[in-house]
Amino acid sequence: MNNKKHILVLNGPNLNLLGKREPGIYGNDSMESCLAHLRVSFPEVEVEYYQSNVEGELINKLHEVGFTYDGVALNAGAYTHTSVAIHDAIKAIEAPVVEVHISNVYQRETYRHTSLITGACVGVIGGFGMNSYKLAIEALLAL
Amino acid sequence: MNNKKHILVLNGPNLNLLGKREPGIYGNDSMESCLAHLRVSFPEVEVEYYQSNVEGELINKLHEVGFTYDGVALNAGAYTHTSVAIHDAIKAIEAPVVEVHISNVYQRETYRHTSLITGACVGVIGGFGMNSYKLAIEALLAL
Amino acid sequence: MNNKKHILVLNGPNLNLLGKREPGIYGNDSMESCLAHLRVSFPEVEVEYYQSNVEGELINKLHEVGFTYDGVALNAGAYTHTSVAIHDAIKAIEAPVVEVHISNVYQRETYRHTSLITGACVGVIGGFGMNSYKLAIEALLAL
Amino acid sequence: MNNKKHILVLNGPNLNLLGKREPGIYGNDSMESCLAHLRVSFPEVEVEYYQSNVEGELINKLHEVGFTYDGVALNAGAYTHTSVAIHDAIKAIEAPVVEVHISNVYQRETYRHTSLITGACVGVIGGFGMNSYKLAIEALLAL
Amino acid sequence: MNNKKHILVLNGPNLNLLGKREPGIYGNDSMESCLAHLRVSFPEVEVEYYQSNVEGELINKLHEVGFTYDGVALNAGAYTHTSVAIHDAIKAIEAPVVEVHISNVYQRETYRHTSLITGACVGVIGGFGMNSYKLAIEALLAL
Amino acid sequence: MNNKKHILVLNGPNLNLLGKREPGIYGNDSMESCLAHLRVSFPEVEVEYYQSNVEGELINKLHEVGFTYDGVALNAGAYTHTSVAIHDAIKAIEAPVVEVHISNVYQRETYRHTSLITGACVGVIGGFGMNSYKLAIEALLAL
Amino acid sequence: MNNKKHILVLNGPNLNLLGKREPGIYGNDSMESCLAHLRVSFPEVEVEYYQSNVEGELINKLHEVGFTYDGVALNAGAYTHTSVAIHDAIKAIEAPVVEVHISNVYQRETYRHTSLITGACVGVIGGFGMNSYKLAIEALLAL
Amino acid sequence: MNNKKHILVLNGPNLNLLGKREPGIYGNDSMESCLAHLRVSFPEVEVEYYQSNVEGELINKLHEVGFTYDGVALNAGAYTHTSVAIHDAIKAIEAPVVEVHISNVYQRETYRHTSLITGACVGVIGGFGMNSYKLAIEALLAL
Amino acid sequence: MNNKKHILVLNGPNLNLLGKREPGIYGNDSMESCLAHLRVSFPEVEVEYYQSNVEGELINKLHEVGFTYDGVALNAGAYTHTSVAIHDAIKAIEAPVVEVHISNVYQRETYRHTSLITGACVGVIGGFGMNSYKLAIEALLAL
Amino acid sequence: MNNKKHILVLNGPNLNLLGKREPGIYGNDSMESCLAHLRVSFPEVEVEYYQSNVEGELINKLHEVGFTYDGVALNAGAYTHTSVAIHDAIKAIEAPVVEVHISNVYQRETYRHTSLITGACVGVIGGFGMNSYKLAIEALLAL
Amino acid sequence: MNNKKHILVLNGPNLNLLGKREPGIYGNDSMESCLAHLRVSFPEVEVEYYQSNVEGELINKLHEVGFTYDGVALNAGAYTHTSVAIHDAIKAIEAPVVEVHISNVYQRETYRHTSLITGACVGVIGGFGMNSYKLAIEALLAL
Amino acid sequence: MNNKKHILVLNGPNLNLLGKREPGIYGNDSMESCLAHLRVSFPEVEVEYYQSNVEGELINKLHEVGFTYDGVALNAGAYTHTSVAIHDAIKAIEAPVVEVHISNVYQRETYRHTSLITGACVGVIGGFGMNSYKLAIEALLAL
Repeated sequence: MNNKKHILVLNGPNLNLLGKREPGIYGNDSMESCLAHLRVSFPEVEVEYYQSNVEGELINKLHEVGFTYDGVALNAGAYTHTSVAIHDAIKAIEAPVVEVHISNVYQRETYRHTSLITGACVGVIGGFGMNSYKLAIEALLAL
Repeated sequence: MNNKKHILVLNGPNLNLLGKREPGIYGNDSMESCLAHLRVSFPEVEVEYYQSNVEGELINKLHEVGFTYDGVALNAGAYTHTSVAIHDAIKAIEAPVVEVHISNVYQRETYRHTSLITGACVGVIGGFGMNSYKLAIEALLAL
Repeated sequence: MNNKKHILVLNGPNLNLLGKREPGIYGNDSMESCLAHLRVSFPEVEVEYYQSNVEGELINKLHEVGFTYDGVALNAGAYTHTSVAIHDAIKAIEAPVVEVHISNVYQRETYRHTSLITGACVGVIGGFGMNSYKLAIEALLAL
Repeated sequence: MNNKKHILVLNGPNLNLLGKREPGIYGNDSMESCLAHLRVSFPEVEVEYYQSNVEGELINKLHEVGFTYDGVALNAGAYTHTSVAIHDAIKAIEAPVVEVHISNVYQRETYRHTSLITGACVGVIGGFGMNSYKLAIEALLAL
Repeated sequence: MNNKKHILVLNGPNLNLLGKREPGIYGNDSMESCLAHLRVSFPEVEVEYYQSNVEGELINKLHEVGFTYDGVALNAGAYTHTSVAIHDAIKAIEAPVVEVHISNVYQRETYRHTSLITGACVGVIGGFGMNSYKLAIEALLAL
Repeated sequence: MNNKKHILVLNGPNLNLLGKREPGIYGNDSMESCLAHLRVSFPEVEVEYYQSNVEGELINKLHEVGFTYDGVALNAGAYTHTSVAIHDAIKAIEAPVVEVHISNVYQRETYRHTSLITGACVGVIGGFGMNSYKLAIEALLAL
Repeated sequence: MNNKKHILVLNGPNLNLLGKREPGIYGNDSMESCLAHLRVSFPEVEVEYYQSNVEGELINKLHEVGFTYDGVALNAGAYTHTSVAIHDAIKAIEAPVVEVHISNVYQRETYRHTSLITGACVGVIGGFGMNSYKLAIEALLAL
Repeated sequence: MNNKKHILVLNGPNLNLLGKREPGIYGNDSMESCLAHLRVSFPEVEVEYYQSNVEGELINKLHEVGFTYDGVALNAGAYTHTSVAIHDAIKAIEAPVVEVHISNVYQRETYRHTSLITGACVGVIGGFGMNSYKLAIEALLAL
Repeated sequence: MNNKKHILVLNGPNLNLLGKREPGIYGNDSMESCLAHLRVSFPEVEVEYYQSNVEGELINKLHEVGFTYDGVALNAGAYTHTSVAIHDAIKAIEAPVVEVHISNVYQRETYRHTSLITGACVGVIGGFGMNSYKLAIEALLAL
Repeated sequence: MNNKKHILVLNGPNLNLLGKREPGIYGNDSMESCLAHLRVSFPEVEVEYYQSNVEGELINKLHEVGFTYDGVALNAGAYTHTSVAIHDAIKAIEAPVVEVHISNVYQRETYRHTSLITGACVGVIGGFGMNSYKLAIEALLAL
Repeated sequence: MNNKKHILVLNGPNLNLLGKREPGIYGNDSMESCLAHLRVSFPEVEVEYYQSNVEGELINKLHEVGFTYDGVALNAGAYTHTSVAIHDAIKAIEAPVVEVHISNVYQRETYRHTSLITGACVGVIGGFGMNSYKLAIEALLAL
Repeated sequence: MNNKKHILVLNGPNLNLLGKREPGIYGNDSMESCLAHLRVSFPEVEVEYYQSNVEGELINKLHEVGFTYDGVALNAGAYTHTSVAIHDAIKAIEAPVVEVHISNVYQRETYRHTSLITGACVGVIGGFGMNSYKLAIEALLAL
């Protein structure tokens, strides 16, 4: 690995459809333009990106980077509310993880008000659209 | 794609064992004979079939067909009761989805009485054995 | 009784106002046009119709037809969520009963997500507007 | 009214089918033979019988006899578990009411374990088949 | 209908016993004297009165007056706490409905603290004895 | 054992204080006069009596008589609401057990509305004061 | 104090913003015009007004007027759903208190369906906009 | 007001003890040094600070700045979990509010996992110590 | 009995191990030294001591002293959270009972936060180590 | 401060009405006579007294004395059941706090059975009328 | 004690009826043959056996052996689901305790799915019939 | 397949990190040394090993071996608490499955106390570290 900080932006289920899916909730921006913006904003950081709809593949990726990277900005999508396994994966690794949400989940259905993963993360940032990812990286860099 | 309507029959976990698994609940018919029967019954429809035990692969498939197909008959099996992610996938796509159940889930354990996906579907059909799939396709064609 | 199959379409409270009541949820079609359509679609079936706002009269009707008819398509309306007595009436008779809903109750208030009668029925069909009745009769004929 | 004690046996929904309905739970005896047996057993009592599937008609009957009769043996059937209105009717009248059940409701579904009416009755007798009615009349006579 | 405003006072189960039933809770006034008082107080209003112990007959009455009357003062009694069907009937009609209670239900059993119908009404007035009806008519006239 | 039927009246905690304890709830009669009355009423029955405040001693007694006696009238007192072990003991023996209560437990604290033992008994009789025991023995004799 | 009746209109948190705050829920009328209207409608009443966002200051005010005034029309706003202390203050004073709501709280979020203060008040009036205050004063005058 | 952006940092109960109170949870930094750091970091912003232990005074402050300031960074402390009134105050004003937490509340007692105010805020940032305030101001500036 | 006041110190399950069991929670003092200290502190009181691990023997003891002693200091240990029978025994006797706890049960597992016996006692004293017993006797003497 | 021990008696909402408010629950003694009695009983202690109906002012007072006084006897009144903020204030200070109640809250409404503050206090004393305060000071002196 | 390891097999309520009680659930083997088998299988272990239906006697036995034995295989029967006192006894002693169940409690009634004692034990073994005891002793020997 | 018994050790999410992850809970032993130990201990058994973080892949593996192997020792990790689908897979196959846990889940977070899969397994063994696997294989061999 090079001299830069290494941070993984890790997106969970259905977030591959960003910009296409329910724009009233998630906005019109695609993840591609968001990543481009992040890389310009943080030139000192190597921003890796991974997305999967498979819970176990998100765990695999956390294991893969979790002992060498400097941090993870994790938007676990719907798995936020149902996955004890991702909670355990975050606890099992060494890299700090920040929970990210694009929308304000407390303005949506009640079952989205409960997070099974916050307790395993350093902290949580949610409700600021694509800017939530940028704030998460800043938070990771400041740890 | 050809001139026919395209409908995906999408089966979730353990439904690859149909005809083999707990025949007292699911009957003796295999999915193969069911599909053959569906294709005869609906000659104007291209009936595609996909099954996976992996929650995320069901989501992948919904994304893949969700912007071009005319409908999905989804039997999410046990994920019906636990998957917010599949709910979100149904909401994210354009094709109408009908929830299908072979057995009457209200005659089984209490935790099978709750569906996390019905609210995202057009409607629900359950309890009619393999005929539930046929009714679901009729319902999709009538939309 | 004649040689035709005999099926009762049984509607519960407030369904006498169909076409007039909350069209955003129930649509503009009246039950009369629905019945006309059903009788054309199933010439081999004698489709009887009965509606009452009184829980006990629905039970009376189930008892009346329950040992001679070939099936019942039952839209119990709001009693779906509160009536153990209708559950017991369905269990007590011999004719198979299919639960019908015009709207997708899972997209409405939480107290409409629970059905006290599904467990006593053969199966459930809901969310397809007036077409739900047609699918229910098909399901009954296929039993 | 004559010199005899007057007691009403009041049966709720689906109990008109006794002897016909789910004999595994309710036995093979009809209510007619039960009443004949009661009238022989209690020659000093005028045993009236009324059954209705309509919750409000049970209330009407309670009001009708509630200020002149010597007691009511009430098997409210499924309304036992759902009717605050029958509770209030029992509270509103002067005649003592004994709650009767043929089966042991605690050996059935959980929602049958809760009674909304016991608190308004003198007492409860359940689980002894048709003999429950006889015990209830004895209990009323001994008050 | 004449030039007067038309308002229905609609009473539910056991309210036919007013003045007779549990005077510690409901007072000694009969409904007759209350209606006489209302008609004197509101000479510009045709006050109709209807009472039934049958849930479905209350729904029938709501349907009957619901598209021509100027308002309904509804004391649904015990059905307040159990009837989704009356909720739906109120939603289905055009006349405004005000929920009325004689007693303060929050000073009674816990199961009387929940109302299934308030959400469908314009508003609620409760705890003022027979004066609750008068206030309800005033509220309806002021709409 | 002699030719008489053998029935055990089995009383649980605090029932040794009957006639002394909270007479507003339990009345002024002592258990001694009750037993005398039972023995007069049922000359064909050997009525044995046992009381203990110790949950396990009640179980011991149930085991002791449970394979030879003709029935048990069990007033488990407060253990009714907390003892799975007594439930199991009733299930484990052959003699039929009738649950007895002196007061109407549904008119008391909420935690007394739940019985852990009814499901294991033949039936339940409650609310008739000391007469509840007599009715229970009648019920046992009629089995 | 003069010969007039003295009634306090007491408003809780955020009600200082009436006319400015969420007009879709609370309407466009300010409290000032409401009070002017009340004083014209009830010339025989001295209508005092007090508003505070501080829970304890509402209690202070209730104590201050609670032993000399003729009644309080209390709109406790959000404290309705969370304040046991205001419940106790109402119980502790002698003046009758009527609970007032501008909107129909049952048409809003679930946590607004529970009132901790109704049980301590004489009665409740809600859902009639600013007219709720007028009805409350009428109710107080009629006590 | 001058040309700078105006942002209020608003702290709730017990946060006046920062640096002194439970340093294992809240760290050793005082709010004074935090504010100094914020003012250096955001020279283009006028950072006002207000703290109160009184729920209603927090509401007063929100009303005072809520129609002229550019944003509020609100750490409501324990009121986060109990105050519907602060929720309503945030809804009632125009300035955007960001919810801030120093600690990760999901790693503490269960009753701290529920926030009554998130749904009224733009978003939430928590778990990053005193840096949470800085991220909140960045989030507000980026809106 | 002599002229002294008679007070029973009654200890429930596992309290025979005091000084030996989990000293982090219960301290190092044995019950013997505690009793010696109590007898010195209250020379005017005959302090009797009884301990049992058997729920029913605690009830037996309460019955035995409950009509002659001047009070009971009861540490019911784990039975505090599960025993309705001890609640009933306290209600059934005449001597006042004070509930005692050595540790602060609210700082331990959630199921220790609920007491089934406080409502039957005069009052509760907990959290002061062995001094809780002394305070309880003072409280009893002051009644 | 002088050589005496300093202890604050801190009373919450509505306790300024002691002697006046609901004497059936709180007795006829005023707080003034109670304080006089305490000062006579504990000549070695400077007993300060403070009461407020404002939650935040109770917190202010706890902060004010919490780092210099020898203890606090806190009767938080209704805030006992709703205030996480007072819990946090107790945790944040160094002086030991004893929770005091005049009445036995377990003999009152269910929502008074839960205390949010006990877990932060040294211990709890309740149910002994005004003597609870004296016992609390003894407990504090014995720490 | 001799040189052998000492292990207590401790059985709770109703397990004295093994081989006799509900053989469909518990099998036909008696405890005697099980113990004989255990003693043959573990010649290096002194296997003591004790059974009681009395909760407190199980606690007495745990105290008796808990500071000298090498382990306890505890089948607490129904007390598993209701006894906090046995939990505390296990915590209070030094010998390791393994929780044993003959049947798979998760295939039985819901109230048998909760164990109050597992958290105090080393581990749990259940569902293997009489072989569960053998596995428990192996587990104890391997610690 | 050879003459040996075939048993699959099947591990779920995060168990690939054994020996590396949270050693305070899971110990320092790796799965490799555990498997080596198992193969030495059971020379008559072919012990296969499979681990996946993907819920569906665990189901695939259960299907693959479920009709030919002699048993499965399944440590489903976090999926134990959330997966109805794995429950169904166990039910669908013929090979007996034993649920295994390394730690005592009842000593951890509450959401780990519930298992969705025990009811489908033969039995459960948990809390014995890596020895749990060995006990599970013994249990399977003894069936």
